[in-house]
Amino acid sequence: MNYWRRFLDWLTANFSSRGRSVIPREQVSVRPIGIVRNGVRTPRPEGWAHLVSDVVVRAELLDLLDGIEGYSHIFVVFAFDKVPESEQRIRVRPRGDARIPEQGVLATRSQLRPSPIGVSVVRLLKRRRNILRVEGLDAIDGTPVLDLKPYFPNYDAVPDAGIPQWARDLAAEGPTPAR
Amino acid sequence: MNYWRRFLDWLTANFSSRGRSVIPREQVSVRPIGIVRNGVRTPRPEGWAHLVSDVVVRAELLDLLDGIEGYSHIFVVFAFDKVPESEQRIRVRPRGDARIPEQGVLATRSQLRPSPIGVSVVRLLKRRRNILRVEGLDAIDGTPVLDLKPYFPNYDAVPDAGIPQWARDLAAEGPTPAR
Repeated sequence: MNYWRRFLDWLTANFSSRGRSVIPREQVSVRPIGIVRNGVRTPRPEGWAHLVSDVVVRAELLDLLDGIEGYSHIFVVFAFDKVPESEQRIRVRPRGDARIPEQGVLATRSQLRPSPIGVSVVRLLKRRRNILRVEGLDAIDGTPVLDLKPYFPNYDAVPDAGIPQWARDLAAEGPTPAR
Repeated sequence: MNYWRRFLDWLTANFSSRGRSVIPREQVSVRPIGIVRNGVRTPRPEGWAHLVSDVVVRAELLDLLDGIEGYSHIFVVFAFDKVPESEQRIRVRPRGDARIPEQGVLATRSQLRPSPIGVSVVRLLKRRRNILRVEGLDAIDGTPVLDLKPYFPNYDAVPDAGIPQWARDLAAEGPTPAR
């Protein structure tokens, strides 16, 4: 791309009607609603699919869970709280696999992203009061949980979603294509 | 449940080996990476499925998006920044529909939840530099975007996930069963 075109893009991004698109600088603060317990002490690229974890929710939020046991799967939204800002990356190679082209970190599920948020779909095995036993959560022991959401297949499942060829090749190999 | 049983539960929750499960009190702070532009000024229960929105990402994060255009669908993680804490609820009735039993707010996708975070799967129509055009994002104009993630069907799609009977009945009616 030549410099003139690049300059026009910059001009458009900063001074056009998109000037309305001022992105808020204030941080959004979220108090954890719970914590992950699974005995996994260190991050690892694989081995999460059948791991059983407990999500221990703050006791005073007990009534807010009413009805969640009616769902077979839930989203767990959690914080990558162990990643120092200095380790954040612009680009990463998923799984550290040399066959995969480098990707912008927002085009991956890597924890080295600017917003330290993870989202995972897990199977809800059982609820006992404020403790949810789940399978497939890819978060280490002690991870702060920010939110839980029921999974609606008619809304959240896109079985035919398109992914790049390298990701299709990897998907055939294992269940954790991204991080 | 009698008081003795309730006392035992309280004891277990607070002083057993679960005592390790001290839930961090520190808030997790996230700086928005972008903003939603779609001209929708007020919240509404329906009418999102075919809405086209622009997600305008901070210009300095441009390179972090490299490769995201290879996915047909992405997760958008956003902040419910317009909901005052005083409006948060313990239980809600999804869609305000009297036929639906009241649910704990964490068992719904309601914005009246303790952690003001929304997660939606959307179709990625097009990327132009730092602007992603998406379809199906249920967030109003000006909503801060906290994170974007590629959608992997082999990982995120659970077409046969179980939901309660009332939600199955509703799913037959429309595309937004939860909020």
